[in-house]
Amino acid sequence: MAIEKESKFMEWFNEILQTAEIYDYRYPIKGMGVWRPYGFLMRENMLKIIRKYLNETGHQEVLFPLLIPETNLRKESEHITAFEEEVYWVTHGGKDKLKIKYALRPTSETAIYPMYALWIRSYKDLPIKYYQVVNIFRYETKTTRPLIRVREVTTFKEAHTVHATRQETEEQIKEAVQVYSKIFDELALPYLVLKRPAWDKFAGSEYSVAFDTIMPNGKRLQIGTVHFLGQNFSKVFEIKYLKPDGSHEYVYQTCYGISSRPLAAVIAIHSDERGLILPPSISPYHAVIIPIYYKEGKEKVLGYSLKIKNKLLKSGFRVKEDFREEETPGSKFYFWEMKGIPLRIEVGMEEVNNQSVTVVRRDNRQKVRVEENILVTKIRELLDKIQKGLKEKADKWMQEKIVEVHDLRDAVEKIGRGFVVKTWWCGEEKCGRDIEDKTNAKVFGFPFPWEEKQKETSSKKCILCGKKAKFNIFLGKSY
Amino acid sequence: MAIEKESKFMEWFNEILQTAEIYDYRYPIKGMGVWRPYGFLMRENMLKIIRKYLNETGHQEVLFPLLIPETNLRKESEHITAFEEEVYWVTHGGKDKLKIKYALRPTSETAIYPMYALWIRSYKDLPIKYYQVVNIFRYETKTTRPLIRVREVTTFKEAHTVHATRQETEEQIKEAVQVYSKIFDELALPYLVLKRPAWDKFAGSEYSVAFDTIMPNGKRLQIGTVHFLGQNFSKVFEIKYLKPDGSHEYVYQTCYGISSRPLAAVIAIHSDERGLILPPSISPYHAVIIPIYYKEGKEKVLGYSLKIKNKLLKSGFRVKEDFREEETPGSKFYFWEMKGIPLRIEVGMEEVNNQSVTVVRRDNRQKVRVEENILVTKIRELLDKIQKGLKEKADKWMQEKIVEVHDLRDAVEKIGRGFVVKTWWCGEEKCGRDIEDKTNAKVFGFPFPWEEKQKETSSKKCILCGKKAKFNIFLGKSY
Repeated sequence: MAIEKESKFMEWFNEILQTAEIYDYRYPIKGMGVWRPYGFLMRENMLKIIRKYLNETGHQEVLFPLLIPETNLRKESEHITAFEEEVYWVTHGGKDKLKIKYALRPTSETAIYPMYALWIRSYKDLPIKYYQVVNIFRYETKTTRPLIRVREVTTFKEAHTVHATRQETEEQIKEAVQVYSKIFDELALPYLVLKRPAWDKFAGSEYSVAFDTIMPNGKRLQIGTVHFLGQNFSKVFEIKYLKPDGSHEYVYQTCYGISSRPLAAVIAIHSDERGLILPPSISPYHAVIIPIYYKEGKEKVLGYSLKIKNKLLKSGFRVKEDFREEETPGSKFYFWEMKGIPLRIEVGMEEVNNQSVTVVRRDNRQKVRVEENILVTKIRELLDKIQKGLKEKADKWMQEKIVEVHDLRDAVEKIGRGFVVKTWWCGEEKCGRDIEDKTNAKVFGFPFPWEEKQKETSSKKCILCGKKAKFNIFLGKSY
Repeated sequence: MAIEKESKFMEWFNEILQTAEIYDYRYPIKGMGVWRPYGFLMRENMLKIIRKYLNETGHQEVLFPLLIPETNLRKESEHITAFEEEVYWVTHGGKDKLKIKYALRPTSETAIYPMYALWIRSYKDLPIKYYQVVNIFRYETKTTRPLIRVREVTTFKEAHTVHATRQETEEQIKEAVQVYSKIFDELALPYLVLKRPAWDKFAGSEYSVAFDTIMPNGKRLQIGTVHFLGQNFSKVFEIKYLKPDGSHEYVYQTCYGISSRPLAAVIAIHSDERGLILPPSISPYHAVIIPIYYKEGKEKVLGYSLKIKNKLLKSGFRVKEDFREEETPGSKFYFWEMKGIPLRIEVGMEEVNNQSVTVVRRDNRQKVRVEENILVTKIRELLDKIQKGLKEKADKWMQEKIVEVHDLRDAVEKIGRGFVVKTWWCGEEKCGRDIEDKTNAKVFGFPFPWEEKQKETSSKKCILCGKKAKFNIFLGKSY
């Protein structure tokens, strides 16, 4: 990678997506790209992690249509106002003009909730915890960026839950935050869990909680959101249930989503000047086996390589062998380092003779000789170390990207230098919006759940008005 | 199920989709429906089977955008002519009218092949065997039917392969036919593999091979297609490669697809008057455990049920327990029979005391007592028997739906009574089209590969003109 990651981040990012054959952004529609086989495997591994944590907490997968009749999309007024400018419209079928226009879903509340109204009759039908993995569309007017800001989000996991009481719905928000934390931990991503300020909540929700990470250029990237919808949508879509006492009430709802952005963050945060560094959890392969031989040793080396491969496959590892004849071992090293595979396994005559392999870590390039009889244990141990090491390093890196400031000029200066700023706010919306104006930055929000973090704030003052602070906030540039 | 399957097939089919909570067709856009959790699991199991056989033959999964610029869709003239009347058009983004209209993909040749032109440079890049699983759209003017003829096909697996030579491309067609045969075998579906007559091939292909099954009402359902594209598309999209001798040539291509129709066939063909009968391969659960107790035995029975469940889960079976308090064992039996689960495991005090379970097969309702120490072996054996039995029964059933005829009046009569007709044809297109006109039916095609079936034909005469027959054809009503 000839381009420097921190200083020319987007150039670097575009280049690595192309070189590592992850996502091809040359598709002839702006803001839409193609997942190539290598990228597709990363995407699949991310989705496996997402599904694992959702399924084990009782979520069930469903699939709704892409198209939403205009009449449905318009039912919740705050919602349509927010999305109106960004919706793609299907107006014709063949040569016929459609009587009602269809929206390409920008998100699926207005596709799903009319069906919930049909399915939910009584408290016995609750809770419902459904999710789907679909493509969504936004006619973005801002500059598009591959995987970061696209017009077709090809990978959107959206969960939509329904509950009988407000209390149970608050509990669901906590479960969602826990589930998402586990998902992002397993992706080795650093993140902040923040309650968004009221002026930045999801259109139609009572409040929104978001997962933010920081990209190498200092910009915030929102990687997940959790919304408390209350009864806003159920009143619009007439989703009522029979209570045990015979009366009827509107249901309470939440929704929460994750797009392909976490993959963008994984790529951006862990990589180095040699290319990708992938956490074992999402790497298409845990290890690549590269044979090294001269003419006479070929058969033995390839045979032993396959033996090692099969041993590892049997133990559940994802392993690839690179037996290409036309490439030298050196160019293979270079190629798979660029691709970010966590472990390289070298097999030569010395390894064959000693019933061992040489293993090289991608993250710190440490080389160890591993005897065949402890191969499986050792590979598992190395992958664990890489996985944990990447997460720790990323957490530390993000902490260093966040600086505490106490006055506006300092905030502007730090943000200008690519930092995210931690500061304090009185809680008044006017002050919050003024902070954004004066720093030309975004208020990301304050830690969620808030109760645990309150103590720290009691002695602090609002960065703008100087009154007693109510919230510790984060402030910075954003995608 | 109060409705009779053979005589009122579509009514029966609509009812079972709704009652078993597979696919809800009440979505507010005609021809588009919702996969509910139970149906989604069936769909997932089908996709696992499809992916398994594709991946093990070296196919790689990718994902292309939904939208296709009008200019690209129009490049291959035969292709656009066939799809023009059926394409949904996106004309607006927000309030802006788009400069170029976008089609919702009706199929993805014109989305994928411009990218192939970028990716393919030399013979070293070939072959390419990519596939994707996506939703596609057809503005159907014919009557829509859930899962059978829809406007959003939510589950379309389409493979697109690229090769250096015509010979290699013919081999790929054979591989595709083999892969599809394995897939449909594992779905326990009966099928014919037929080469379509020239007037019914895929628009833009040289020839098409199709997998047809027969529905309970005697109508043919096409469940898979394999197309030999030759160089038609590569010449239009300028997909050339460098040959070892330094010259350039256009690549050869195939494409082949499977939609959600095989699931419609699985549901339709195997079920009985009690509801679904699912092959173990795609059933959401292999077995459901139903505890039977009176007050005193409850704890022991539930404890033993869980022990049995965990034992089976550990061995890789998909098992569900039904511990609902508000339902009687009898109503649970009825419910899970309707849902089609292959095995019911009953656990009562007698079973607890004898360290055994009672297992009831869904397909033939046979009941056996199984000792716990041979549980895993026995369950595997029973599932195998059910899987094989369903396939054999379905094959036999389809053979009985096909009758051989030698004159047109007989053909009309048999088709009118819900049969598919096997007969002979001289091979002239005019005769073929006249056969269709005079019988008011479709010529499905002749067996593929043809060579093996030729002998039988040598002594036969064309059903229309009486000249020497060239092909044995199948003829009937069709979806």
